[in-house]
Amino acid sequence: MHLKIAVLPGDGIGPEISVQGVDVMSAICKKFGHTVEYEYGVVGAVAIDHVGDPFPPETLQLCKNSDAVLFSAVGDPRFDNDPNAKVRPEQGLLAMRKQLGLYANIRPVETFKCLLHKSPLRPEIVDGADFICIRELTGGMYFGEKYEDNDRAYDTNHYTRKEVERILRVAYDYAMRRRKHLTVVDKANVLASSRLWRKVAQEMEKEYPEVTTDYMYVDNAAMRMIQDPRFFDVMVTENTFGDILTDEGSVISGSMGLLPSASTGESTPVFEPIHGSWPQAKGLNIANPLAQILSVAMLMEYFDCRAEGALIREAVNASLSAGVATPDITGNKGRQFSTSDVGAWIVDYINLK
Amino acid sequence: MHLKIAVLPGDGIGPEISVQGVDVMSAICKKFGHTVEYEYGVVGAVAIDHVGDPFPPETLQLCKNSDAVLFSAVGDPRFDNDPNAKVRPEQGLLAMRKQLGLYANIRPVETFKCLLHKSPLRPEIVDGADFICIRELTGGMYFGEKYEDNDRAYDTNHYTRKEVERILRVAYDYAMRRRKHLTVVDKANVLASSRLWRKVAQEMEKEYPEVTTDYMYVDNAAMRMIQDPRFFDVMVTENTFGDILTDEGSVISGSMGLLPSASTGESTPVFEPIHGSWPQAKGLNIANPLAQILSVAMLMEYFDCRAEGALIREAVNASLSAGVATPDITGNKGRQFSTSDVGAWIVDYINLK
Ligand SMILES: CC(C)[C@H](C(=O)O)[C@@H](O)C(=O)O
Ligand SMILES: CC(C)[C@H](C(=O)O)[C@@H](O)C(=O)O
Repeated sequence: MHLKIAVLPGDGIGPEISVQGVDVMSAICKKFGHTVEYEYGVVGAVAIDHVGDPFPPETLQLCKNSDAVLFSAVGDPRFDNDPNAKVRPEQGLLAMRKQLGLYANIRPVETFKCLLHKSPLRPEIVDGADFICIRELTGGMYFGEKYEDNDRAYDTNHYTRKEVERILRVAYDYAMRRRKHLTVVDKANVLASSRLWRKVAQEMEKEYPEVTTDYMYVDNAAMRMIQDPRFFDVMVTENTFGDILTDEGSVISGSMGLLPSASTGESTPVFEPIHGSWPQAKGLNIANPLAQILSVAMLMEYFDCRAEGALIREAVNASLSAGVATPDITGNKGRQFSTSDVGAWIVDYINLK
Repeated sequence: MHLKIAVLPGDGIGPEISVQGVDVMSAICKKFGHTVEYEYGVVGAVAIDHVGDPFPPETLQLCKNSDAVLFSAVGDPRFDNDPNAKVRPEQGLLAMRKQLGLYANIRPVETFKCLLHKSPLRPEIVDGADFICIRELTGGMYFGEKYEDNDRAYDTNHYTRKEVERILRVAYDYAMRRRKHLTVVDKANVLASSRLWRKVAQEMEKEYPEVTTDYMYVDNAAMRMIQDPRFFDVMVTENTFGDILTDEGSVISGSMGLLPSASTGESTPVFEPIHGSWPQAKGLNIANPLAQILSVAMLMEYFDCRAEGALIREAVNASLSAGVATPDITGNKGRQFSTSDVGAWIVDYINLK
């Protein structure tokens, strides 16, 4: 196979972890006889600084001409506390999602045995939790009509049947390949948009008789995820609720720095770590590259390269078992490994296999 | 003092726990030489069944003519999975909030030492957590313009400066009386409504130089609350985010069945347990009455009756220490106590003091 990869390192620690992702990608492709070419694009604050646009047309074009996007992170505190900023790095992310039609954000929540002690939850509650959050990513309040003046402001949480159908389809397909349990999260007791979601889901349910579908209010889901995370297999929800719940989910595993995600839809899929740009750590070579590296595994699996994905996962597990890990995991105890140490170790592991 | 209390038992376990709240209220008033009169009203499913309206005008009038409302819970599964239901019990709650102008929902999150083992969080993380979530309750998406047909639907998340100002005022007042740390939760990197919140907060911050104000995105807050709940002192946020975060907060303490809340604003304040109507337990005399009883403590404290509130809290702690508790707490181990057993024990404690 030949792969054209658009690499978007973005802001903060993005460039550092991006390098590790690319190195692992090259190693795995070489090992399995694939060829890969990379082209780099700007996004986020770095793109604002260079061309005044957080997702410039050249980056869009680059993405469209590629088979997949390897993305890192955007965000810069310079923009955060300035309510009057006209452009923001995050708009680059939103523009990318919208312009590539990335309506499905897929976030596996997995626990790693050797990291369970990092979870804020009791081990007996979280051990074995293994679910997927599917967040609708191009609709809802983030993209609905907005208005803002000095005295009032609003956002519109808008969904069409088509938008709801296609994301539920993705969710049912995942459920069919997993434990056949889908939880549709909404607030149908209050929101009109949620009632549309529930109506469409109740219709679609009949097409998947093997799948157990249940419906849960978002406030209840936020509780259940902490009280009993093993309850979930596949969870699907709209954009804003998904933003909150996927982040809540990521933290319970104790493996936040290790969780990748995929965003798929109408055009080129994007693979990225779920953590942000961590501006405070920029340039320090201390950020954990594993989420970026595991997003390469998701990328390979997307193209049905299962053995490739499996080898990356094996290498990641081996590095953890060997204690070759960044300070977020080792807690500054024992030998210290940098971002590039960990990446290099994994590349070696793959090469030597 | 003479108090006129509107009692709204509502649905499910509401009536059972309401009785206990009223008994405790009577005991405490007698002890401290206050007089109290009760009048009962319907709300929720029971009101739909009786008069076709989940918050009928007579109930509104009753509330307006009272000094405080002692509310229990609404909700009935008959309405939940029917996306076409025209009236819903929850609309009663929303109507009550709107018509009484209850814009501030105040939810203390407290841990009880003897219940820490019930928390899904590790004790070393949650022990000592003690914060207040303040949720805006009459604005935002719940009340904004809505539309729904077979092909699309929307809700509008609308806020005015005035709505934001008054709830932030409440939050700052709480912060001043506590550890002087306010966290304003929003999604200002994406939502116009959030930017209005942040703008207003940044202006108001200057009036409270003693208070440390920080700003946190809602996804981040959902994580932080689990990773480090002791970080928070007072947290304030808009209606929908507050719905999710207050419920998340309630579960981390392990004391969900014990948490009361107050909703205050332009007219009569309402005091209620945070848990719902638990329809499955209706009539079984097993529901925990402590949240309802502690909402009586909040009620007394609202009227500056601190000793009264303190005695109720003391009685509740004593009942827990004595193991006089419902199955949600005892875990079906040891002697079993019913809803009414626990209520009666607390009344006795107060009488004998
Ligand atoms: C940066 C922000 C716009 C973004 C979002 O909320 O979608 C981020 O929080 C995420 O979850 O990817
Ligand atoms: C029943 C529902 C409308 C209500 C809400 O979301 O406001 C409830 O969840 C609550 O938090 O009091």
